[in-house]
Amino acid sequence: MPPDPDAIVGNGDDAAVLRLPDSRVVATTDMLVENRHFRLEWSTGTDVGVKAAAQNLADVAAMGAIPVALLVGLAAPRDLPVAWAEDLAGGLALEAGRAGAHVVGGDLSGADEIVVSVTALGTLAGAAPVTRGGARPSDVVAVTGRLGHAAAGLALLGAGLAEPAGLIAAQRRPAPPYEAGPEAAALGATAMIDTSDGLVQDLGHVAAASGVAIDLDTARLRPGPELAAAARALERAASSAGGPAAAGSPAAQWGSAAAELGPAASAPGLGWVLSGGEDHALAATFPRNIALPSHWTVIGEVREGHGVRVDGMNYQGQAGWQHFR
Amino acid sequence: MPPDPDAIVGNGDDAAVLRLPDSRVVATTDMLVENRHFRLEWSTGTDVGVKAAAQNLADVAAMGAIPVALLVGLAAPRDLPVAWAEDLAGGLALEAGRAGAHVVGGDLSGADEIVVSVTALGTLAGAAPVTRGGARPSDVVAVTGRLGHAAAGLALLGAGLAEPAGLIAAQRRPAPPYEAGPEAAALGATAMIDTSDGLVQDLGHVAAASGVAIDLDTARLRPGPELAAAARALERAASSAGGPAAAGSPAAQWGSAAAELGPAASAPGLGWVLSGGEDHALAATFPRNIALPSHWTVIGEVREGHGVRVDGMNYQGQAGWQHFR
Repeated sequence: MPPDPDAIVGNGDDAAVLRLPDSRVVATTDMLVENRHFRLEWSTGTDVGVKAAAQNLADVAAMGAIPVALLVGLAAPRDLPVAWAEDLAGGLALEAGRAGAHVVGGDLSGADEIVVSVTALGTLAGAAPVTRGGARPSDVVAVTGRLGHAAAGLALLGAGLAEPAGLIAAQRRPAPPYEAGPEAAALGATAMIDTSDGLVQDLGHVAAASGVAIDLDTARLRPGPELAAAARALERAASSAGGPAAAGSPAAQWGSAAAELGPAASAPGLGWVLSGGEDHALAATFPRNIALPSHWTVIGEVREGHGVRVDGMNYQGQAGWQHFR
Repeated sequence: MPPDPDAIVGNGDDAAVLRLPDSRVVATTDMLVENRHFRLEWSTGTDVGVKAAAQNLADVAAMGAIPVALLVGLAAPRDLPVAWAEDLAGGLALEAGRAGAHVVGGDLSGADEIVVSVTALGTLAGAAPVTRGGARPSDVVAVTGRLGHAAAGLALLGAGLAEPAGLIAAQRRPAPPYEAGPEAAALGATAMIDTSDGLVQDLGHVAAASGVAIDLDTARLRPGPELAAAARALERAASSAGGPAAAGSPAAQWGSAAAELGPAASAPGLGWVLSGGEDHALAATFPRNIALPSHWTVIGEVREGHGVRVDGMNYQGQAGWQHFR
């Protein structure tokens, strides 16, 4: 990959030195742990690198900032194939490049299981940061990026299914809409978050930080055909497996079974849209008079009060992203 | 601890936003893994927090920069006592505070073993960074901070000895001389590194990056009375245990046995001074006409050539910091 044009001192010294457009730096860190955030039998090293980079880069974008750099730590067993570690580095560089950022530092250590730690740095390039705390009553709520795809892909993998392949790819390699972060800031977004834990749960953080209520309208959150197909495939797999354990499995719950919301919410796959994490879509609130580009979908509005309501009801579905174990 | 005066957005949003004195950021990351970089039976949570913070903050200081912020990831088993995690956070905050920095972000995950990942950010506050690559022939080499104490403490712990207590404390809690980093930059240091892997090995990085040779003079690296006492105590312990295995243990080697260097290098404890890591002392090169403050000790000089020589010989002692296993 090309050298980082912002690097005054790159990888290989005690620390990297980067030049930013202004004197503020945006910084966030996250870890991925083997068998909790990824499985070697389901993901390649490249996949894990993409995922580790994406979840951190999306946090930078969710501040309205432009990603600039990644620092990466890898702790791994001595017998980890070198090719896997190289693929990991390749995946990190690939996704960093997609966001316009570079890997500028790293650390390698032995460990009994694989732990990938990523820190992302970004710049606001003169703009004000968009926090979780600025949503105001009468704002609209809008999203851009995939919703529920990664969760559906996880359910498919767990059930041993290989289709729809696009959802499994979404679980392996999230594709956050990084450019929409600074775009939202420029459009006047009042609050923003990335959907790492699930739409309802993450908007709950915005509602709490802003001291407002958020109302979502499931008529505007229709699952696409891939999600509907996945829900049907999992339902078939569960019923052919038979028994209450299979019917009550997380996969079946996530894909459908939003019964408490009433008829409008019975669409197959809606559970994933509302509660599925790891897509790193961006959800933001905007003053209602702002004309949003078409890749932003208005899904609800901000009101006085607290909490997140779905179709006017307190949503009691899945609490959001779960560890494998 | 007091809130970070530099934080525009602190912990609790998608990412932290910090204001720096200028538009450059210094960044570095390192991991500590249980049973490789620390042992629960030898270190408290506070100790591990101090050590994790110190090794990253020292890397910032070694660029001539002022530490500003830490981001921390903790992956740990579910049954890790909450008190241990709180102590870890306390140790991180304690050492960050000693360096003038704040913890501004974090992530928590499950794992089978404890992994602490720290990223440190810093500012050059208008100065130029001091890399490893600027040493020039005729410069002097100087150090400030402890040398060999952490390694001696590790050897004592490994042998089940409790004295000298100051060396064991140095292993548990490194105390890098952070302020000496920007000080060296202001004095005109041409290259700098922190001694994380051992003096000779780390100066080898400076020599390689600068394309020069470094000559060290052991007459200027006399081990203090604590190191000499530790070396004698370990020699007694090894000889009372008897047998060639005990005599050839790493503890015995590190404490003495620099026989190939000749009589001048026979001082007990010199092996630790030359090769012991984890003290995070600062070693820098300066033009020889610069008057250095008394806490900097001149230990050698830069010449044409390559590699590090000790008393004119290629040093073949311990290769530097070793993993526990």
